[in-house]
Amino acid sequence: MSAPTAATAAPATASGADRCVRAPLPVLGRDVTVPLVTGGEVAYAALDYAASAPALQRVWDDVAAYAPYYGSVHRGAGYLSQLSTDLFENARRTVAEFLGCRDGDQVVFTRSTTDSLNLLAAALPAGCEVLVFETEHHASLLPWRGARVTYLDAPRTPDEAVDALERALAGREPHGPALVCVTGASNVTGELWPVRELAAAAHAHGARIVLDAAQLAPHHPVSVTDLDVDWVAFSGHKLYAPFGSGVLAGRADWLREAEPYLAGGGASRTVSRRADGGVDVEWHDGAARHEAGSPNVIGAHAVASACKALTEEGFENLVARERHLIGKVRTGLAAVPGVRILSLFGDDAPRVGVISFVVEGWNSSHFAAALSAEYGIGVRDGLFCAHPLVRILLGGDPQAQGECGAPEAAPGEKSLNAVRVSFGAGTPDEHVERFVRATAELVAQGAQWDYRTQDGRCVPVV
Amino acid sequence: MSAPTAATAAPATASGADRCVRAPLPVLGRDVTVPLVTGGEVAYAALDYAASAPALQRVWDDVAAYAPYYGSVHRGAGYLSQLSTDLFENARRTVAEFLGCRDGDQVVFTRSTTDSLNLLAAALPAGCEVLVFETEHHASLLPWRGARVTYLDAPRTPDEAVDALERALAGREPHGPALVCVTGASNVTGELWPVRELAAAAHAHGARIVLDAAQLAPHHPVSVTDLDVDWVAFSGHKLYAPFGSGVLAGRADWLREAEPYLAGGGASRTVSRRADGGVDVEWHDGAARHEAGSPNVIGAHAVASACKALTEEGFENLVARERHLIGKVRTGLAAVPGVRILSLFGDDAPRVGVISFVVEGWNSSHFAAALSAEYGIGVRDGLFCAHPLVRILLGGDPQAQGECGAPEAAPGEKSLNAVRVSFGAGTPDEHVERFVRATAELVAQGAQWDYRTQDGRCVPVV
Repeated sequence: MSAPTAATAAPATASGADRCVRAPLPVLGRDVTVPLVTGGEVAYAALDYAASAPALQRVWDDVAAYAPYYGSVHRGAGYLSQLSTDLFENARRTVAEFLGCRDGDQVVFTRSTTDSLNLLAAALPAGCEVLVFETEHHASLLPWRGARVTYLDAPRTPDEAVDALERALAGREPHGPALVCVTGASNVTGELWPVRELAAAAHAHGARIVLDAAQLAPHHPVSVTDLDVDWVAFSGHKLYAPFGSGVLAGRADWLREAEPYLAGGGASRTVSRRADGGVDVEWHDGAARHEAGSPNVIGAHAVASACKALTEEGFENLVARERHLIGKVRTGLAAVPGVRILSLFGDDAPRVGVISFVVEGWNSSHFAAALSAEYGIGVRDGLFCAHPLVRILLGGDPQAQGECGAPEAAPGEKSLNAVRVSFGAGTPDEHVERFVRATAELVAQGAQWDYRTQDGRCVPVV
Repeated sequence: MSAPTAATAAPATASGADRCVRAPLPVLGRDVTVPLVTGGEVAYAALDYAASAPALQRVWDDVAAYAPYYGSVHRGAGYLSQLSTDLFENARRTVAEFLGCRDGDQVVFTRSTTDSLNLLAAALPAGCEVLVFETEHHASLLPWRGARVTYLDAPRTPDEAVDALERALAGREPHGPALVCVTGASNVTGELWPVRELAAAAHAHGARIVLDAAQLAPHHPVSVTDLDVDWVAFSGHKLYAPFGSGVLAGRADWLREAEPYLAGGGASRTVSRRADGGVDVEWHDGAARHEAGSPNVIGAHAVASACKALTEEGFENLVARERHLIGKVRTGLAAVPGVRILSLFGDDAPRVGVISFVVEGWNSSHFAAALSAEYGIGVRDGLFCAHPLVRILLGGDPQAQGECGAPEAAPGEKSLNAVRVSFGAGTPDEHVERFVRATAELVAQGAQWDYRTQDGRCVPVV
């Protein structure tokens, strides 16, 4: 690759603190090379952490060490079954510690944040009202089927968000149950939401709150106690543990009173035929109530391993390193003409390593395809499963339709999509430096190759 | 360990064919040793395959080879995202081939058989009646919430099963939709059910049928086309691929017409605010409709790898080897006084390597604990998440309550539970030989150690 351009030659945020940031954590795939359409190979720059992060090497090592000892959980008399059961329940305790859970809180292993929020949606008490900002990921916008949902308009500052929630809650029937669902960090802008303040507003009006921490937990410490949220949901695959597990943790009461999320073994304590031919079921009360079927013990173990690894590294170090990378990207992009970073709360808002942008005159799918094919950089283009928010940020018609992650228009046309670059604990400086340089080169010189849309993907013509 | 006793010194089924059975497939954990309470260590004999089977070495190798290339599926522009998307969709095709799917059938990746059947339950058309034998696993008995369910009494022969279903279907309102749910192989007795005949009966009466192949697919070929079933469900963790994935495969129509199983990203094609403040959602039609959230690509890849490995080994070889092992266990147990094998369909019924039994004068939890602590053998005791069936087979009161997998009574008391030994493609002869010898020794000489119930487990007193 050529030498750094002016846009990235100087440190993006040239503070003294940047000289003290730690090295990235080792992740799988750090040695993977990919072919370039222009010839040769290059180390892959995984800059799509907000969709799925690579496994920490530590997580992989823990999974590999356990795998030969895998056995049936909760159900076997053998040594490996008992070892696996202990490992699974220890994973639950590790996650509870990681999230600063209160006494009596439950940790339910799910498959993902989406699954966790669907579980909570299925556990809402009768008549529960749900309040959610239109700016949320679809996983937070859509699961509340059967409930009365109030969609709140996009706020333009964190204070506006709190005010809007206050107003909406003040206007509601005060005696019924209500739930607020809010993201900790936007999967589009990376901006942090005022979770503690929103929780206080919710509780002041007798509502509860669930935190969608899918994008927050990999980057910042999340404590249900400190934030005073009732539940928190996150995904293993964004937390460097991509083995099919997620988490819902928090208050036990709604979960205990709800019908089991899945019906089957594990959730059922006893099942017996009735004299009338039907069956009687007594369900478990604890987390098992919502974990029917054999648990994904490898997935839970992987999540717990990631929790331990991040805690041991220290979030103060992780945050410092990520701030350093964010500075490089934002300063670098600011120097590229025609690049507009999407933001709801403005330049000074605190954020995680998730940055979406559009490039004047470029279709975002085209731009993302060129980053991949000509520079070996993996980003995402599209609406990021947050269609209403992205439409608002693009200034387009929020009624317009768009594919989730697929190109909308032929290369060269104006795009209604955006490009997202995202990174985290495993990202070396070189990846974001290469991304900034590539962006500057593509804008200055155009793509070196021709692209076309094929099977919903923008691909190089070969 | 001491020399084989008379019960197992001779080949259990001394046919010429047994001399031609192939070696077991390599699995993880085959070199794991566990401590014995009586001193020393022994290679662990994993005989709880019906709960969770060890990963095939081939599956693990495929997972390990892919893991560094893991990337976001369906959503990224980068090379590894495209590679991962192709891998995920190829896994779907591999599973479709493995199951002999018809054109137009859908393969949905779930987390387990339990999850698959809950998904199908959520996709039942309005007014659908469900018919299920009381002999099923809870995962097949219980998911049909909201539907009218007819529980059919336990048949004593396969023909009786078909007759009972015929009668029940003939008596129903003929024009409404109906679904029959049936296991392919019992998770308690291992006995095969007459799936093809039950499917014919269902279809003759305008009903559909779903096959619970959790216990069948790891042991026998399963073809939805040959069996003429509408759907089939199975779990990766019983198919030597314990990475949190399962499968529901079959007819697309009910799945396409149903509300998405989970609401969120991936399942939603477009989301937009309405003028009245609500949101409009257009959902995907295909498998993605029911796969919201980031897919468990490692889990799906592992399942596909297992499907390939079993197909390449050849089910004729797998069945021959398993028959050889079943013969050893059944012949061996027949020689031990006081052992009664649980059976619905009788001694001659075809079966897979799942055998449950009780031992006169022994609490099953006590027996299973002694097998583990004194012989390094992992089996399961309990009611196997099939309470009504086990109660019937034990001759006990089917109203009685029992813990799923936990001891019910103190060691030495009469048990209402059973012991289950189960095995498969990775089981060496030595494991089942040791099991038979251990059973004979425990019955003849009693346990060498004392046991007590602690935290719901029967454990050696130390």
